[in-house]
Amino acid sequence: MSSSYGENLRLTIFGQSHAPAVGMTLEGIPAGKPIDPERLQRFLDRRAPGRNEYSPPRREADIPEFLCGLVENVTCGAPITAIIRNGDTRSGDYDALKAVPRPGHADYTAQVKYFGHQDAAGGGHFSGRLTAPLCIAGGICLQLLEKEGILVISRIASIGDVNDRGELLASTAGKDFPTVDEGQGAAMRALIAEAKAQGDSVGGVVECAVLGLPAGLGDPMFGGMENRIAALCFGIPAVKGLEFGAGFAAARGRGSEMNDAFCLEGETVRTVTNHAGGILGGISNGMPLVFRAAFKPTPSIAREQRSVDLRAGRETSLRVPGRHDPCIVPRAVPCVEAAAAIAVYDALLGRKKELDG
Amino acid sequence: MSSSYGENLRLTIFGQSHAPAVGMTLEGIPAGKPIDPERLQRFLDRRAPGRNEYSPPRREADIPEFLCGLVENVTCGAPITAIIRNGDTRSGDYDALKAVPRPGHADYTAQVKYFGHQDAAGGGHFSGRLTAPLCIAGGICLQLLEKEGILVISRIASIGDVNDRGELLASTAGKDFPTVDEGQGAAMRALIAEAKAQGDSVGGVVECAVLGLPAGLGDPMFGGMENRIAALCFGIPAVKGLEFGAGFAAARGRGSEMNDAFCLEGETVRTVTNHAGGILGGISNGMPLVFRAAFKPTPSIAREQRSVDLRAGRETSLRVPGRHDPCIVPRAVPCVEAAAAIAVYDALLGRKKELDG
Amino acid sequence: MSSSYGENLRLTIFGQSHAPAVGMTLEGIPAGKPIDPERLQRFLDRRAPGRNEYSPPRREADIPEFLCGLVENVTCGAPITAIIRNGDTRSGDYDALKAVPRPGHADYTAQVKYFGHQDAAGGGHFSGRLTAPLCIAGGICLQLLEKEGILVISRIASIGDVNDRGELLASTAGKDFPTVDEGQGAAMRALIAEAKAQGDSVGGVVECAVLGLPAGLGDPMFGGMENRIAALCFGIPAVKGLEFGAGFAAARGRGSEMNDAFCLEGETVRTVTNHAGGILGGISNGMPLVFRAAFKPTPSIAREQRSVDLRAGRETSLRVPGRHDPCIVPRAVPCVEAAAAIAVYDALLGRKKELDG
Amino acid sequence: MSSSYGENLRLTIFGQSHAPAVGMTLEGIPAGKPIDPERLQRFLDRRAPGRNEYSPPRREADIPEFLCGLVENVTCGAPITAIIRNGDTRSGDYDALKAVPRPGHADYTAQVKYFGHQDAAGGGHFSGRLTAPLCIAGGICLQLLEKEGILVISRIASIGDVNDRGELLASTAGKDFPTVDEGQGAAMRALIAEAKAQGDSVGGVVECAVLGLPAGLGDPMFGGMENRIAALCFGIPAVKGLEFGAGFAAARGRGSEMNDAFCLEGETVRTVTNHAGGILGGISNGMPLVFRAAFKPTPSIAREQRSVDLRAGRETSLRVPGRHDPCIVPRAVPCVEAAAAIAVYDALLGRKKELDG
Repeated sequence: MSSSYGENLRLTIFGQSHAPAVGMTLEGIPAGKPIDPERLQRFLDRRAPGRNEYSPPRREADIPEFLCGLVENVTCGAPITAIIRNGDTRSGDYDALKAVPRPGHADYTAQVKYFGHQDAAGGGHFSGRLTAPLCIAGGICLQLLEKEGILVISRIASIGDVNDRGELLASTAGKDFPTVDEGQGAAMRALIAEAKAQGDSVGGVVECAVLGLPAGLGDPMFGGMENRIAALCFGIPAVKGLEFGAGFAAARGRGSEMNDAFCLEGETVRTVTNHAGGILGGISNGMPLVFRAAFKPTPSIAREQRSVDLRAGRETSLRVPGRHDPCIVPRAVPCVEAAAAIAVYDALLGRKKELDG
Repeated sequence: MSSSYGENLRLTIFGQSHAPAVGMTLEGIPAGKPIDPERLQRFLDRRAPGRNEYSPPRREADIPEFLCGLVENVTCGAPITAIIRNGDTRSGDYDALKAVPRPGHADYTAQVKYFGHQDAAGGGHFSGRLTAPLCIAGGICLQLLEKEGILVISRIASIGDVNDRGELLASTAGKDFPTVDEGQGAAMRALIAEAKAQGDSVGGVVECAVLGLPAGLGDPMFGGMENRIAALCFGIPAVKGLEFGAGFAAARGRGSEMNDAFCLEGETVRTVTNHAGGILGGISNGMPLVFRAAFKPTPSIAREQRSVDLRAGRETSLRVPGRHDPCIVPRAVPCVEAAAAIAVYDALLGRKKELDG
Repeated sequence: MSSSYGENLRLTIFGQSHAPAVGMTLEGIPAGKPIDPERLQRFLDRRAPGRNEYSPPRREADIPEFLCGLVENVTCGAPITAIIRNGDTRSGDYDALKAVPRPGHADYTAQVKYFGHQDAAGGGHFSGRLTAPLCIAGGICLQLLEKEGILVISRIASIGDVNDRGELLASTAGKDFPTVDEGQGAAMRALIAEAKAQGDSVGGVVECAVLGLPAGLGDPMFGGMENRIAALCFGIPAVKGLEFGAGFAAARGRGSEMNDAFCLEGETVRTVTNHAGGILGGISNGMPLVFRAAFKPTPSIAREQRSVDLRAGRETSLRVPGRHDPCIVPRAVPCVEAAAAIAVYDALLGRKKELDG
Repeated sequence: MSSSYGENLRLTIFGQSHAPAVGMTLEGIPAGKPIDPERLQRFLDRRAPGRNEYSPPRREADIPEFLCGLVENVTCGAPITAIIRNGDTRSGDYDALKAVPRPGHADYTAQVKYFGHQDAAGGGHFSGRLTAPLCIAGGICLQLLEKEGILVISRIASIGDVNDRGELLASTAGKDFPTVDEGQGAAMRALIAEAKAQGDSVGGVVECAVLGLPAGLGDPMFGGMENRIAALCFGIPAVKGLEFGAGFAAARGRGSEMNDAFCLEGETVRTVTNHAGGILGGISNGMPLVFRAAFKPTPSIAREQRSVDLRAGRETSLRVPGRHDPCIVPRAVPCVEAAAAIAVYDALLGRKKELDG
C-alpha cells in the first residue's frame, strides 16, 4: 500500500500498463488555481514515447481526461482526478512472464508478492507507464510553483560514461535532449545508438535544480527536503541512487571545502558555494536546490538472457520480444522534474501552517 | 511536522540536544516480543562518543529509560517510549548562534523556519544527538528481525578518498571501526587523524546489507524498499547521497551488465549477480539488500570561517569553539543499521497483511 | 484534504455531482481475491435512486467501470480504481447557488472554504452522489468479509418518531425498506409520504450490526472500532449522531445494568447482554458490533426558506427547484453498511500484523 | 497502532497506568507560541481525581514535565513532549485480572489482542489515566485557540436521567461541576452519591461548544469537523455516543424545522437556529460548534459481578477491590474540551494551507 504520497497534499497513482487506464488523484490543492491544459500537455509530451530516433514509435498521445477537481480549468478544491486511457490492453500472452521472469524487471518480485495474481501485462502497476500520471500531478505542481516564482529545471548529466559539461542553466531545461554542452549531447546520443545497435541499453544521470525556492521549506528529521524528494524519486522505475548538492563527492572531501560560507547579496543571505545543494538540516536555505538521480540501464534488452522457469522449476533462457527503448533517461527528465515539483509544493503548503495568518 | 516515520509501525523522535531529554516512541510492535536490554545497550554504545582516539571524550553513557511499552522487557502492545536524559543542558551562550550561523549547520535554516524561536543550544532538534533515539528504535527492530533470521550488517566503505576493499562480510559488522581490509581501515584512521590535526574534518560512505530478507517485501511506487530506507536515512544528519546495489555505477553501465540473471540454488530463486541490491520494482527479491549512504564531512571544524551577522546585517567570520569530532562516519554506522532495520521491520509487518491468516 | 480514509487500506473518493465522473481508489486489498461484479451491482442498486414510490425517478443505473486493480474480477494487488460516469453534467444555472445558499446544505460553507471556486452544481463534492463510490469500496469489503465469515446487516431503526420494533435480524437485512416489524415499516412509509405531500422531509436512524467478528480487532485510544467507524460514517452526508451499543441510553443507566457480564458458550467467551455493542476499550469482544447513525432530514425541501444573498449582502428567500427525496434514510442503509465494512476490513488487515506469520 | 492522531499536527499518547510514566508528544505546533504553565496546570487539575466528595482521594498532583519542545515556555518548533510520572507502579497482583476479566473493562479484549502480554496493571494503556496526556495536548491547543479568539466551553448536560436546563453559557464553563442550573447540578450530585452508596456507578452526557470559530474550517468527506472530533472523542474511555447540533433529535424532526435559515447580523452571515451545530458539509459555518458525548457508567463498581475464569475455562464471579469513582463525567469534562481543542486547532492549521500567503 504505497501508491500514495504526501503530507500536505496527497497524490495517489493508480493503473496498470494494460488495464483500461492509468491515472492519478491529487488532493489538497487549494481552490481557485488556474491550470493551463496546453502547457500541461506540452509537459506530458516530453515524457511520451516516440520523440527521438531511437525510442519506440508513439502509438498514441498521452492525453489526460480530467474527471473532477477542475471547473473550467480552475481548481475547485475537490480532489483532482485525471486518467489516461491505455491504447492496447490485454493483447498478447503475458502468462509467459509469470513463468519466466525477465532479469532486471519486477516480474519475479511481483510474482512472489502477489502470489501470481499480479497483472503481468506490460509490467502492470510497475510499468514505466505509471510515470504518466506522476507527470500529470507534477505538471500541475510546476504551474503552481511558477506562480510563486519557483522554477524546476533539469538536464541529462550523463549517459553511460559521457558527462555533460558546465553548470545547469534554465535555458537548457525543457529541451528534448537537455544538455548544456551540445557536443556532449551528441556523444550521448551516439552512445545510445550504439547500445541499441548492440541489442543493449544504457543508463544515465538526471540533474535537477529548483530555483527561486525561499529559505525555510522542509522539516527536520524525516521531513527534510531530501527525504521528501527521495520518497518520490525512488518511485520512478530504474532510479537506484540519489544525491543532493555535492552528494557522494562530499563524502570524499574535507569540511573546510564542503562547508558553504555564508555571505550577503544585498540584504539576502546566500552561500558562496552550494555543496549542500540548497538544503541544511533538511530545510531549504534559499540557494538552488540541486540533486541528481541515477537511472540504471533499462532492463529490456534484445539479447538472450538467463532466467528460471518458475513453473517447471529449472533454469532457462529468455529473449524479450518487441522494440525496446535503449535508454529511458531522456524521457525520465520530466519525471524527475515532476517528482521535485510535487515534493516542493507539498513542503510549500506545509510552510503556510507555520506562518501567522 | 516530520519527526515521525512509518506505515505499519510508527516511530516518533523528540528532543533537543540541550533539552531535558531526547527520546522516541515506537508504536505498532506486536505484543509478546522480548527485548534484551543489554544487547540494546551494546548497540547504543557503538553510537556513543568517546570510543576512539579522535572522537570527543565521553561525558556520559547513553542509557535509555523505558517509560512504557515493556513489561519485564517484553513488549506489551502499547506504544514503547524511551528517553535519554541530557547531561549538560542550557549551559553556554547559544544566543550567538542565532546571530552568526555556522556554515554547513542548520543554524541559519532553523532561524528562518522558526523565526528565531528555535532551540539553538547544541543544534537543538537538528543535533546528531537525535540519532540516539533513532538507535533505540533501530536496536529494538534489529532484535526482532534477528528472530526472523534477518541480519543487518554494515561497514565503512570509504573515508575521504580511502576505500575499503573486498566484499562486506557478516564478520566485519559490529566492530568499532568496521572495515573488511584492516590496512585500509588503518589508512582511514590516519586520514581522520590528519584532518583533525589540520583543524578540519572528513566525510565518508557507509555500506549496509540486509541478509536473510525474504522476497516480497516492500511495495510498488512510493512504497519501495528504496523509498522506505531513504525516508529514514536522509533523516540522519549529514547524509547527502544514497544508492542501492550498483547505484550511480549502474548509470554508467549497460543493461547486459547490470541485469542480474536469475538462477536456481536448489529450489530457491537467486540472481547470479546483485547489481539491483536485492530490490526489483521496489520489492525485495531474496538477495542481500545492499545500499550505501554518503556522509558529508562534519561541518564543525576548528578553522575560522566566513559567515554573516544576521542581526547586524553584515558579513563576518566565526570560529566554532569546543572539541570537534573530525569524522562522524564511524559513529554513523549503527545509525544506518538502525534506519535499515526500522524500514525493513515496517515492511515485514506490511507483508503480513497480504498473507492469508 | 480529507477525501481519503484508512490505516491498513486506503480509500480515496473523488468526483463532483456534475463532473464527468465520481469514483474511488482502494489501495491495500491483498491480491488474489475474487470480486463478484453482479453481487456488487446488486449492492450498489440498493443505494440508487428510484427504488420506491417517493424517491426521485432513476435516470441512469450506477454501473461502475473498473479502470484497474482487477484482472478478470480478481484483485491483482495494485490499487483498485472504479468510476461512475455522471449522466447529466453542467446543466442548469448553478451560479445562483453561489449567491443564495440553501439552508442545511453545504453551499455556504463551500463558498467560504473555496472562495467561490467550488463546483456548486448538484452539491459538487458534497453531493450525496459521492456515497456511490463509498458503496463500491464498501461492496468490495463486504464480499471480502463474508469470506471470513463476517456479515454486516442493518435496518431502519426509525423514521421521524416511528420506531422499528424487535431485534435486528440477518433476515431483515438487504430488503429495500428493511424493518423487522412490517407494520412499523408501513407506518414509516406513510410518514415519508406525508412529509412529501407537505413539501417537507423527514430524518431517521439506521442501525447496523457486524456479526461473526472475532475478538481482538481495533486498537486502543484513537484506533478503537468506534473511532474507525465514526471516521467513515460522519463522511456520509446528513449523519449528525452516532452511538455504539446502548449509546446515549447507557449514559442514563447504572454500571450494574450496563456492564455486560461475561459467560461461556461452550468454550467461547460471550457476554450475557451487549450494551457495549461488541466493543470494549475500542476492541471487538466477539459479540455483535452494533451501532446506530442518526440522519437529519434531507435539507432539500419544496418550501420557501429564508436565506441571504451573499452578493447583494441582504436577506432574501429561496425555493429549491426540482423533485426532492423526502427521506434519504432508506438509500442510506447500504452506505452505513459500506462504512462499517470498510472500517472492519481495515481493522482486520491491521490485526494480521499482530499475529505471528 | 492508533495512539496517534492528526493531519496538520500529530499527537501521540503513550504510557500505561502503572508504567513509570504516561505522556504525549505533539508535533506541528508553530514556533514562537508562549504556553502559560500555570493555566495549563489549572486545566489539568480539573481532570485530576480528588476534587469532590465522591471521587477517590488525590494521591498526587498530575504535574507534567516538559522534556522538549519548549524553550522558556515558548514553543521552539520541535516536537513537544511532556510526561507525568506515575506515583505507584507495579504494586498489587494484577495477574488476577488476566485470569478473570472485569465486565465493562478492556481486560478481556486486551487479553485477546495482546495474547496475555498486555500490561494489565490499572488498566494499562486503556486506563482513564491516559486522558491526562490528552489534556496536556488539549490544554496547549486551548491556549493557542484563545489567542485566535476561539473559546471551548462545556457543561454536564445530564447525569443518569437528571438533565441540566437552559443553554450552555461561557460563564458555566470551567467550574468543578459545570451546570447552568444549580438545582439540577445538586440533583446530579445527589444521584452520584446515591449510586456510590449502592456500590454502583452512573453515566452522563457532556455538552461542548466551540465559540468564535470562523467559517471554513474542516473538509468534506472524511475530514469533516464531525469526523475529526469523533476521531478524538471516541478515544476517551467510556464514550459510547456522539452527536452534533440537534443530533439524534434531528433524526426525529422535519427538514422545515431542522434547516437553519440564513440571516445577516450586520454584515456577518449567521443562522437563525443552530440545529446543525455549526457544521454544514463537515465545514464550520461560523455558528457555535456544538456537540454532546455520552459516557457509559464507569464499569468499576463495588458489587459482585459474573465473569469467566479464562485459565480454568469456567464461569465465576468477581468483586473489584479498591475505591471506585461512581461517576467519571465531571472529570471527563476537560477531556472533552481537550479533544475539541485539538481537533479544532488541527483544522485551523489545515485552513492556513488554503489561504494565499
